[in-house]
Amino acid sequence: MVNYVDRNTTLCVSLAARPSNHGVRFHNWLYSELNLNFLYQAFSPVDITAAVAGMRGLGIRGAGVSMPFKQDVIPLIDALDASAERIGSVNTIVNTDGELVGYNTDYVAVAMLLRSHEVDPSLPVAVLGSGGMANAVVAAVADHGMTGTVVARNQETGNALAARYGWDYATEVPEDAQLLINVTPMGMNGGDEKAQAFSDEQITRAAVIFDVVAFPVETPLIKAAARLGVPSINGSEVVALQAAEQFALYTGVTPTPAQVIAAEDYANNPGY
Amino acid sequence: MVNYVDRNTTLCVSLAARPSNHGVRFHNWLYSELNLNFLYQAFSPVDITAAVAGMRGLGIRGAGVSMPFKQDVIPLIDALDASAERIGSVNTIVNTDGELVGYNTDYVAVAMLLRSHEVDPSLPVAVLGSGGMANAVVAAVADHGMTGTVVARNQETGNALAARYGWDYATEVPEDAQLLINVTPMGMNGGDEKAQAFSDEQITRAAVIFDVVAFPVETPLIKAAARLGVPSINGSEVVALQAAEQFALYTGVTPTPAQVIAAEDYANNPGY
Repeated sequence: MVNYVDRNTTLCVSLAARPSNHGVRFHNWLYSELNLNFLYQAFSPVDITAAVAGMRGLGIRGAGVSMPFKQDVIPLIDALDASAERIGSVNTIVNTDGELVGYNTDYVAVAMLLRSHEVDPSLPVAVLGSGGMANAVVAAVADHGMTGTVVARNQETGNALAARYGWDYATEVPEDAQLLINVTPMGMNGGDEKAQAFSDEQITRAAVIFDVVAFPVETPLIKAAARLGVPSINGSEVVALQAAEQFALYTGVTPTPAQVIAAEDYANNPGY
Repeated sequence: MVNYVDRNTTLCVSLAARPSNHGVRFHNWLYSELNLNFLYQAFSPVDITAAVAGMRGLGIRGAGVSMPFKQDVIPLIDALDASAERIGSVNTIVNTDGELVGYNTDYVAVAMLLRSHEVDPSLPVAVLGSGGMANAVVAAVADHGMTGTVVARNQETGNALAARYGWDYATEVPEDAQLLINVTPMGMNGGDEKAQAFSDEQITRAAVIFDVVAFPVETPLIKAAARLGVPSINGSEVVALQAAEQFALYTGVTPTPAQVIAAEDYANNPGY
């Protein structure tokens, strides 16, 4: 990615133990496209407290926060937006004249996707997984007016997540589940990439499939939904929307849907 | 300036109350020219302690330090190179795996120029000015084996600087001075740009003229020296050499003289 830099350039960063190229490519592509004098750079902080202090000290405008820092940053910043407060997890920090406010744009993106895909709030839900992202997903789904079951092998985290939102906990997907959401690494590149998170039978019974896995876009689950004629929402939509939301928070400029798609496309194709 | 950025890009910064575009343009031009995955960005820190903490926390590789932070950073870093120790002033911080070492590349650049221009150490010197940069200049000149007079209207700082290196202090340029160095803003853009730091008579009596003012390159003093046929060293040489020295400290790569000249040329011509 190629960007203009001068003394007035505003810096945004990502803070992650293992930064991906996604944020760097997505944000820098849009900065260039929209002629904004911003630059986005990835950091792997050795000390998150010092990194957030440095964000203040240097006047860095925004930070995308990834594993394992999403909870750690909460005591280091000044306020939480409702999106981060709701789930106790920050994936975005915005620095406005020295006041650092935490947001969770994963939560915002899932909520927006449920609305834009007009997901019927009366559908029973099954969320597979009980990690940090599952927490954001269950909160957004619950706030969309839905209820359902957390399905997880880990009884402790599964039960805790379900209890938090008044949902059920199970180790198997309930037969009546109509919105099936995968928030595990099943189907993800570099891990369990051949695993299909829900069976063909489960998919056939459902009204909507939602896979949070973004890399690849076409997971075995998304491919199976297409093959079986069941509508789906894919992880790339979550990643692009949450990044677009970050982008708007940092710059005050809301990219058009076409620009978001183009930036996401660029971010996912290192060969460009 | 246009540079490539990805998740592996190494950041270097400048820390200054009022950053210029020089560092941004000089360093980024060379990064691009030499195909180094580095990026240089200017910051105006509100809190220098937090900024240096952030340099540690984020793993920023290098920082150019300008007014008013050159002394303030000393207690915030781990060690001083001889160049910074000598004059109690840091204009460059290098971060090697979390150890922050302070350098003074102004001192280094002046010392290199005295050698490369083969300035005779037996010439009596007059240094006009008694600020922070005058301190770096007098130290480098003294370490070149020379002695002379600090000429300054401010008796307190002038006397202190002279005493520090065993020099004389005066309010007027001594008649026997053979190396005349201007370290005041006389002749500088945006200030006293028409002032000629030394008179034609003083220049005619001298063997070498040295103007530390870099903007413009052709100050009234440098023009007068050319007109009177007296050899000169100009401020642009100091700025370029000190930046080249920073560049080598940050990247481990020493640019060729031709590359330094081209980078300096680019830095001084915003119209490019």
